[in-house]
Amino acid sequence: MKKVHLLHIGVGNVGRQTVKQITVQRTALKAATGLDLVFCGLFTNTAGVFKKAGLSKLDIAGFPNGSKADLKKAVTEIPLPFIVIDTTAADMTLPLLKLALKRGGSVVMSNKKPLSGSQDDFDALLKHGENRVLFETTVGAGLPVIGTLADLLKTGDDIESITGCFSGTLGYIFSQLQTGTPFSNAVKIAKSHGFTEPDPRDDLSGIDVTRKAVILARLIGQKIELSDVKLQSLYPAAMARLSVDEFMKALTELDQDIAEKVVAAKTHQKVLRYAATITPKQCSVGLENFHIDSEIGSLRGPDNIIVIRTRRYHDNPLVIKGPGAGVPVTAAGVFADIIKAAEAIPS
Amino acid sequence: MKKVHLLHIGVGNVGRQTVKQITVQRTALKAATGLDLVFCGLFTNTAGVFKKAGLSKLDIAGFPNGSKADLKKAVTEIPLPFIVIDTTAADMTLPLLKLALKRGGSVVMSNKKPLSGSQDDFDALLKHGENRVLFETTVGAGLPVIGTLADLLKTGDDIESITGCFSGTLGYIFSQLQTGTPFSNAVKIAKSHGFTEPDPRDDLSGIDVTRKAVILARLIGQKIELSDVKLQSLYPAAMARLSVDEFMKALTELDQDIAEKVVAAKTHQKVLRYAATITPKQCSVGLENFHIDSEIGSLRGPDNIIVIRTRRYHDNPLVIKGPGAGVPVTAAGVFADIIKAAEAIPS
Repeated sequence: MKKVHLLHIGVGNVGRQTVKQITVQRTALKAATGLDLVFCGLFTNTAGVFKKAGLSKLDIAGFPNGSKADLKKAVTEIPLPFIVIDTTAADMTLPLLKLALKRGGSVVMSNKKPLSGSQDDFDALLKHGENRVLFETTVGAGLPVIGTLADLLKTGDDIESITGCFSGTLGYIFSQLQTGTPFSNAVKIAKSHGFTEPDPRDDLSGIDVTRKAVILARLIGQKIELSDVKLQSLYPAAMARLSVDEFMKALTELDQDIAEKVVAAKTHQKVLRYAATITPKQCSVGLENFHIDSEIGSLRGPDNIIVIRTRRYHDNPLVIKGPGAGVPVTAAGVFADIIKAAEAIPS
Repeated sequence: MKKVHLLHIGVGNVGRQTVKQITVQRTALKAATGLDLVFCGLFTNTAGVFKKAGLSKLDIAGFPNGSKADLKKAVTEIPLPFIVIDTTAADMTLPLLKLALKRGGSVVMSNKKPLSGSQDDFDALLKHGENRVLFETTVGAGLPVIGTLADLLKTGDDIESITGCFSGTLGYIFSQLQTGTPFSNAVKIAKSHGFTEPDPRDDLSGIDVTRKAVILARLIGQKIELSDVKLQSLYPAAMARLSVDEFMKALTELDQDIAEKVVAAKTHQKVLRYAATITPKQCSVGLENFHIDSEIGSLRGPDNIIVIRTRRYHDNPLVIKGPGAGVPVTAAGVFADIIKAAEAIPS
């Protein structure tokens, strides 16, 4: 039996579901793997609870009511062996993750920011080894993307290209475009279904996809900053200054241009997609045409897809496809990483 | 630095490539993971070389010339920590794998037979824990099938169904059927390209697919024997008695029936596939129609595909697709399993 302490930062939608999945599965996991996962700390932006000896069921069920433990103190004091889990979308966790690693702990992140900030920060995290720094859910949520890529690299394969659609929101919008819906309408429908961020520009800027592309590019050996990515935003810079309401109205100005692109693609048996392409020397994110029968061209709706071509997977690529967002699958991906990190801790 | 000894049974096509990949990658792997993989034994059906202290480069390069070490003795004497690798297609390795596990070693298999024989034997192997018994390449070669399924199960997901095409040979043949090629011709073409076994009945019987289906069924909790699978062979039992040449000639007798099935599917916008379907209570292998736009219906050529539906991946399944056979990708999958098994050994 190996006891591993958990400190969870960012107990929001995904975080709360992760805690729930682990709590439900705890006994079965103990029996199957000998791992005893013990929550010692839970934190949100504004609340926190921490007990070195482990939280009780009541502590967990009652969180965050009235709790206000100190996060940095918790990272400093949580007993080894431990894992710090970061399911925030914040920059500010980076020093805490570094501290955790320095103390000999492991970290599991769904948070893309610490890994897609500066190359130096990425290197500072990864130097502790891939068994102590896990982040499968940063690309494609629970889909087995990062782990698969790591296996290819470790066994000496050469990555030729990674192409993919990593935004369920944009996937949904581009499926709508394909059926003739104007761009502005497609965005409105997506927004009304809650598929976009509150400000849809957070999706349409491509910055979220770019962060994922940077993580993949770094994994295959590029030294790259966010600003190095050839990024094509779906709206002109001038629209950045508008309020959300103004922006939603102004979107119709973009309809004709995008409709023309959709039609032009169609005349060549192709479809327009918002895709990321990473090679050992390049990284680009933006509009691209794919043949209607290709892997990416045949993608429908909000699914993510990743198409990996390597020296060994050259003629026929390795393809992984499925929901790349959503609370239960992302939480399960974080949970799977926690198990892997815990198993890798020497007993 | 952790030294792990390797004993490799079945150094044929895949096995030899695995040895080569490990040899090429050894230094980089040491630097990246601290693992030192040391070959102590290499065996084929008829030859073997074994040295407790590790084989030299010359031993490896020269194998199998003039070598005749005793396999059972090697499994008995290889020093801990060790991994026995089974890339044969033989039944006879099972007692050796059990012995290796009993001694505290780990095993990595691309060999389906020990896992698709009796349920008791499967249980006897798996009771040692999934970190000591790895077999990713038994289904879909290097595609991340078994590991993904294990992650879903460990995190408490419920598998609703697994549907897939696990034979590149049959995938190739059924793609030919779709373009109007008669069945007998499609088999002949596949045979002439070397895509089939020397006796194509080994593919057309569906037994190889059935072994894969049984492994998946057992992983999701079924207690099942090979004979429990609802298996539809692609040729009638009477043809089992023919010589290979006679069989190839007699194949034309099957053309009309299969052509009618292909046409009938087409009138409903469907395509005929040879697929496996596994649910928590069922396991079947045989002909099935899939919509032309579905994941499986849009499969082309020799690729494998696996479509996993679970409680969490319910509306949109998790899909993995790509080459499910071939020497370099299978060898790389075995190699990746060796790394995982080695990393899981307590240091």
